[in-house]
Amino acid sequence: MNVILIEPGEIEGDRATIRGDRARHAREVLRVAKGASIRVGVIDGALGRGEVLAIEADELALRLELGEVPPRSRVDLLLALPRPKALGRLYSPLAQLGVRRLMLTNAERVERSYFDAHQLAPAYARARLLEGLAQARDTRVPEITVHRSLRALLEDDLASLCPGTTRLLADPGAHPSPHAAARARDRVLLAVGPEGGWNVFERDRLGAAEFTPVSLGARPLRSDVAILALLALVHDAIR
Amino acid sequence: MNVILIEPGEIEGDRATIRGDRARHAREVLRVAKGASIRVGVIDGALGRGEVLAIEADELALRLELGEVPPRSRVDLLLALPRPKALGRLYSPLAQLGVRRLMLTNAERVERSYFDAHQLAPAYARARLLEGLAQARDTRVPEITVHRSLRALLEDDLASLCPGTTRLLADPGAHPSPHAAARARDRVLLAVGPEGGWNVFERDRLGAAEFTPVSLGARPLRSDVAILALLALVHDAIR
Repeated sequence: MNVILIEPGEIEGDRATIRGDRARHAREVLRVAKGASIRVGVIDGALGRGEVLAIEADELALRLELGEVPPRSRVDLLLALPRPKALGRLYSPLAQLGVRRLMLTNAERVERSYFDAHQLAPAYARARLLEGLAQARDTRVPEITVHRSLRALLEDDLASLCPGTTRLLADPGAHPSPHAAARARDRVLLAVGPEGGWNVFERDRLGAAEFTPVSLGARPLRSDVAILALLALVHDAIR
Repeated sequence: MNVILIEPGEIEGDRATIRGDRARHAREVLRVAKGASIRVGVIDGALGRGEVLAIEADELALRLELGEVPPRSRVDLLLALPRPKALGRLYSPLAQLGVRRLMLTNAERVERSYFDAHQLAPAYARARLLEGLAQARDTRVPEITVHRSLRALLEDDLASLCPGTTRLLADPGAHPSPHAAARARDRVLLAVGPEGGWNVFERDRLGAAEFTPVSLGARPLRSDVAILALLALVHDAIR
């Protein structure tokens, strides 16, 4: 935890009272005492400092001095819904690296049962996203949407969800690297298929939606490793 | 498993007999029958095809046609010994992305008990490295060495273990990206510190050993995410 994230509802004026894991972290890991100053952030709001006014077993009272709201990430991710366990493990790394919008979509090679997984529940996802943001000192929670139809997502929703983005499609072929395909200051939308790949129709639709194929090279990587590598390259290219 | 990896000891002439998980994978996932041809690789040797001569409950007999030995990775990793659980989870991704040599070193902020962890046992590491290689269709097993003294590693061993490498040091400051610091066709040695960072003396020694600091930017990433991001960037820069 490199910043203590505070829910807007925990704030009154310039004071905040937090409980649970975060209070325990402040006491046991940061070992703060009354008068200490710690890094804080308001969820989807500003970063700043919190002066410890009182610390008890499971409660921490802070006076806040807030600064700037960090900019939102310029990278969106369109991801064929992964296996639930893999999805659960992805949230924190995605929030660490910075994703503005995560669109989870159906595809032929996505098992229908994945849509019923508890890892898709908003509270489950949010807890892990906040963990990643607290690691990366960010406050901007990635927005997650779930799409039962890739076609409807591409044809009806994508233009308004992700306006003005360079669209890149991860593909195992001999394509340029995502680092070469994205330019400084771009907003980028990266699409990553299911483990078995997109089918022919899905690929055609992605092509029609002006996604350009990019590749990490000849080594087939496990999805989780590939997604982190792709995001690292895109972020570096646009930084 | 994108390639079935065979131990040299399982080969006689142009025939190989394999058992266990790999035989089960061929039967249950690849659903091969007699006469089928599957991708194989000899550990630390050539990639090629195997014609299925016989398949039984737990045994697969193959006739091999081997091609080229894949080149060794051009990236070495010097890593302050991570927490045992984190280390255990790193082996497969490291083998997937491609690491030639993994040097695990002591540092002030590495707990001594980590050196006794079962995750350091060669058989434990090798099983997970092979899993990563089978995913990435590679045969070259990363070489692992454990170093109780960073000073001895840097001053006595590094020149012969990693000759002719560009030496990069991951550092949270405002440094160039590893992508900008590595050049096409380079051999690169990347050093990553413990969770609490290197101490002043260790940093001085790394500087004296001509490590150049590089950074992933302002977001502090969890070690596992940072290591994969750094490797992805270095591999892309030298590809």
